[in-house]
Amino acid sequence: MLKITGESELLSFDDEKGRKAFHHTAAHILAQAVKRLYPAVKLGMGPAVENGFYYDFDTEKPFAGEDLEKIEAEMKKIVKEGLPLEYFELSPDEALKLLEGEPYKIELAGELRGKAEKISFYKQGEFTDMCAGPHLTDVTPVKAVKLTSATGAYWRGSEKNKMLCRVYGTAFPKASQLEEYLSKLEEAKKRDHNKLGRELELFATSDVIGQGLPVLLPKGAKVLQILQRFVEDEEEKRGYRLTKTPSFAKSDLFKISGHWYHYRDGMFIIGDEEKNGETFALRPMTCPFQYQAYLNRSRSYRDLPMRYNETATLFRNEASGEMHGLIRMRQFTLSEGHIICAPEQAEEEFFGALDFARFLLKTLGLEEDISFRFSKWDENNREKYIGAPEQWERTQNFMRGILDKTGLDYYEADGEAAFYGPKLDIQIRNVFGKEDTLITVQVDFQQAEMFGMTYVDSDGEKKYPIIIHRSSIGCYERTLALLIEKYAGAFPLWLSPVQVKILPIADRHNGFCGEIRDELTKNGVRAEIDTRNEKIGFKIREARMAKIPYMLVVGDSETEKREVSVRSGKKGDLGVMTPESLINALREEIDSKAL
Amino acid sequence: MLKITGESELLSFDDEKGRKAFHHTAAHILAQAVKRLYPAVKLGMGPAVENGFYYDFDTEKPFAGEDLEKIEAEMKKIVKEGLPLEYFELSPDEALKLLEGEPYKIELAGELRGKAEKISFYKQGEFTDMCAGPHLTDVTPVKAVKLTSATGAYWRGSEKNKMLCRVYGTAFPKASQLEEYLSKLEEAKKRDHNKLGRELELFATSDVIGQGLPVLLPKGAKVLQILQRFVEDEEEKRGYRLTKTPSFAKSDLFKISGHWYHYRDGMFIIGDEEKNGETFALRPMTCPFQYQAYLNRSRSYRDLPMRYNETATLFRNEASGEMHGLIRMRQFTLSEGHIICAPEQAEEEFFGALDFARFLLKTLGLEEDISFRFSKWDENNREKYIGAPEQWERTQNFMRGILDKTGLDYYEADGEAAFYGPKLDIQIRNVFGKEDTLITVQVDFQQAEMFGMTYVDSDGEKKYPIIIHRSSIGCYERTLALLIEKYAGAFPLWLSPVQVKILPIADRHNGFCGEIRDELTKNGVRAEIDTRNEKIGFKIREARMAKIPYMLVVGDSETEKREVSVRSGKKGDLGVMTPESLINALREEIDSKAL
Repeated sequence: MLKITGESELLSFDDEKGRKAFHHTAAHILAQAVKRLYPAVKLGMGPAVENGFYYDFDTEKPFAGEDLEKIEAEMKKIVKEGLPLEYFELSPDEALKLLEGEPYKIELAGELRGKAEKISFYKQGEFTDMCAGPHLTDVTPVKAVKLTSATGAYWRGSEKNKMLCRVYGTAFPKASQLEEYLSKLEEAKKRDHNKLGRELELFATSDVIGQGLPVLLPKGAKVLQILQRFVEDEEEKRGYRLTKTPSFAKSDLFKISGHWYHYRDGMFIIGDEEKNGETFALRPMTCPFQYQAYLNRSRSYRDLPMRYNETATLFRNEASGEMHGLIRMRQFTLSEGHIICAPEQAEEEFFGALDFARFLLKTLGLEEDISFRFSKWDENNREKYIGAPEQWERTQNFMRGILDKTGLDYYEADGEAAFYGPKLDIQIRNVFGKEDTLITVQVDFQQAEMFGMTYVDSDGEKKYPIIIHRSSIGCYERTLALLIEKYAGAFPLWLSPVQVKILPIADRHNGFCGEIRDELTKNGVRAEIDTRNEKIGFKIREARMAKIPYMLVVGDSETEKREVSVRSGKKGDLGVMTPESLINALREEIDSKAL
Repeated sequence: MLKITGESELLSFDDEKGRKAFHHTAAHILAQAVKRLYPAVKLGMGPAVENGFYYDFDTEKPFAGEDLEKIEAEMKKIVKEGLPLEYFELSPDEALKLLEGEPYKIELAGELRGKAEKISFYKQGEFTDMCAGPHLTDVTPVKAVKLTSATGAYWRGSEKNKMLCRVYGTAFPKASQLEEYLSKLEEAKKRDHNKLGRELELFATSDVIGQGLPVLLPKGAKVLQILQRFVEDEEEKRGYRLTKTPSFAKSDLFKISGHWYHYRDGMFIIGDEEKNGETFALRPMTCPFQYQAYLNRSRSYRDLPMRYNETATLFRNEASGEMHGLIRMRQFTLSEGHIICAPEQAEEEFFGALDFARFLLKTLGLEEDISFRFSKWDENNREKYIGAPEQWERTQNFMRGILDKTGLDYYEADGEAAFYGPKLDIQIRNVFGKEDTLITVQVDFQQAEMFGMTYVDSDGEKKYPIIIHRSSIGCYERTLALLIEKYAGAFPLWLSPVQVKILPIADRHNGFCGEIRDELTKNGVRAEIDTRNEKIGFKIREARMAKIPYMLVVGDSETEKREVSVRSGKKGDLGVMTPESLINALREEIDSKAL
């Protein structure tokens, strides 16, 4: 159990508060070790984060491999010294004096002058840091520590500032816990889509194109093509109508939707409104574009529900520090849709959208990694939203009513709503345990009126419909990232860009291999032949590394008997089969979308 | 035969020069009539154009229906007066004096001051116009004249200038010629995609989204989805590998490709290079993006030819006067592709790309409307191109050699090349006889070197490949426009968004209709039921107007016998059929892509 400053009771490492104080103390130990070894280094900030901590340093030469080992060794020495952490407070002026020589700390303290009467500090041995705490009361419990990486990070996250060196680490009370964590991390790293996805040639990035704009290579593009066709066909079956709307529009459109006032920083703007009559923005979502299809003619209650779908390209101006592989990009593809319905249809349509999303997640084998978040507005930051508080209350209650009927095990989160309405977020955890939103379903009572969308009801009255915003499979690129990590690159057969690799043992087998390939292609199986002049063992190894689901080895015996030796990436050697029985088995596996 | 000023021989109306002088004279007659009826109107420009002429007028109230009739009557009067056209010249200063009260003419004459010694004029009766000619020697031959429309047009095509009223007209030597022309025009207008495509709810436009950014409604989006899948599947069969690359990139990329210097006015730029480190541009083509896939790893001669395809969204900053329906847009979808090959493969790959384009055109029934243009550079405007003159000569000769081998009946056009190389353009004429480029195939010796794209040849040497740029079906939206006009909205069955409309005579037939619909859907036929409480004649009429290929009428007799009465939009009444035989016939027609 851990003793924490300011806490009367002992806390466990499993408790979030306890763990945070533990990691935060580890961050101080890191900074102390760096100051002992490199006195000229200036300190930035050093908080606890999920699974560990970091500290930012202004150092002439960024820390790398050997430096980290040296620092880690010094940290262990400090822990053995068993230093206590002492809390004290200073006035802002006294604080500034104490912080002399630490320009980043002085910048932070300077901002507190006139706002705070006292600034708090923690001191362990010769090392003192301005810090709000809480901390462990001494460094002894930080028994097992590991510095995991160092990267560049702008001071306070702004590109206008200097790039500092951010050192990440993790720490545990016991060595066995650290070992277990590191081995899990090692396993996760092997599956990291940002590494494996590049190795498997699913995607690449390019410095001249820019950050957050991945290039999907043929294998990755193939997976997305398969997914897109599957989703669009399922949507058609469920009564959706496909649209194809522009990727950008005049600012006028976003002024009506409110994005121009509430989401402008997140958008790419083309042209300068003051200089020029025409200003455009790349769209961050499809909503107001798809509304134009509804607005194309007058609508009656007979037209409702009107379900629109689109495989939409969206653009968000993410900060450079935020972008990550296929998870967070400046351009991505969303399975976007809007259901325009009468109020009495909203509940059923919501269920339908949710059911569809869960069907897709189940088909992809991702259902076990999800949780449901009811994302509400933040009453204390009303200026971030449009609409009256009563309307938010009403919509949130309406949505909670639907959610309760679904029997979903959901949790509520304040401040996570869209600026125009609350939403149900389907959250998904990746191999590193990091959570992201994959799919959302929203109920919107506001935008129909803002855009003048009406329908004539059976009573002859003009009314405003309700709009359900929904994604079905979510962001295609993000889904691809999750699939790479889930299956460690070995996709289910129906999603594999190359399903079968045919491996002739010698050149004289190429002819029969060609026949098999043609037969497979004719039956809709994606097959390639490896005709290189290489040993069969090497060919098999390479096909396995490329995560090809099935390898067919063809030598003299196979050619003579017109058979193939089948090897599965997952199930190993499957023996000899005729091409016909192989094709039947593959079609069965593909058509059933077996996982 | 026509007597033209400055020509010693008589010219025919069928001769382009003769026809131009004829229409140009008609434009002067138009201006003369306007000045007689509305003396306060100021004159802009009035040239001959394809199929007629126009004149721009600065008038307080734009001319409309009745005005045009009045003007046309006055024109006929002028023709009857049989006025001769007299040519004379003035010095610029004398010209400016003569043009007093005509600010637009003065602007044009002012620009000639110091450049030209003499300015030429034509005079007919009381009307004089500054004009380079030539003209008919008198107005008499302009026997049959018709003013066809009036639209707004900015003075000199710039949005910064005043909007003038442009009056279009056509004229012929004989009334019978005019009648024939107008009736053809009438037929073409019915097919005009910009009218029919909206009526059939294939697409719409929206003022708040902006010009040149059409919204594809569900029916139009469906046709594009079918086309896209067909093209991508065919490309896969022909050994292409799909990519999915970003819609925009840092200016860095376009600086390498040369677009930043040679095509900047045509691009949408995001961010200001001088203000901010990050400047992006929406892509006007896919080339440098797809090259990144090639550059992802080192390549050997064994990898070549590498054929990449992508259904790419492209963006071009067209001037507002240039945009037109689904023909010329600010955003469109191109069946883009690049074949990266060794020089010795270029010829075969060129043939392959051309063969594929022709296969697609034939499948769509568009082959009879095309011609082949060999688009070369313009030696006299070298600054518009990259690369040395010798290289252009070499590439053009290489391409001409290939073209001659194809046996294509092509023509050559100077100044129509891309800035980086010559191209073969497949030109297509629409119902109005207007020509546009639908598909291009280019041979490019320059860009591989610019982007550092190499391959290791069988001799171990590093070499630059040749790049063949090609589109297969061209711009999808433009193809849709051409299909709408070609088939007057009645698409071949396989492309029809709704293939079958089931029409119950009374509510009691809805059940059986539902069964038929389900059976059709199961067999991949897109069917809808019209369950409205309307007379069967009305339902049939509406389905015909919507250009539905097949209508199934279901009443008591059909329900009892479990049959359907089939009516084809093209072939009329087909009698009674069982659902099974109907489905067989439909599948046969769909699978064969019958026209």
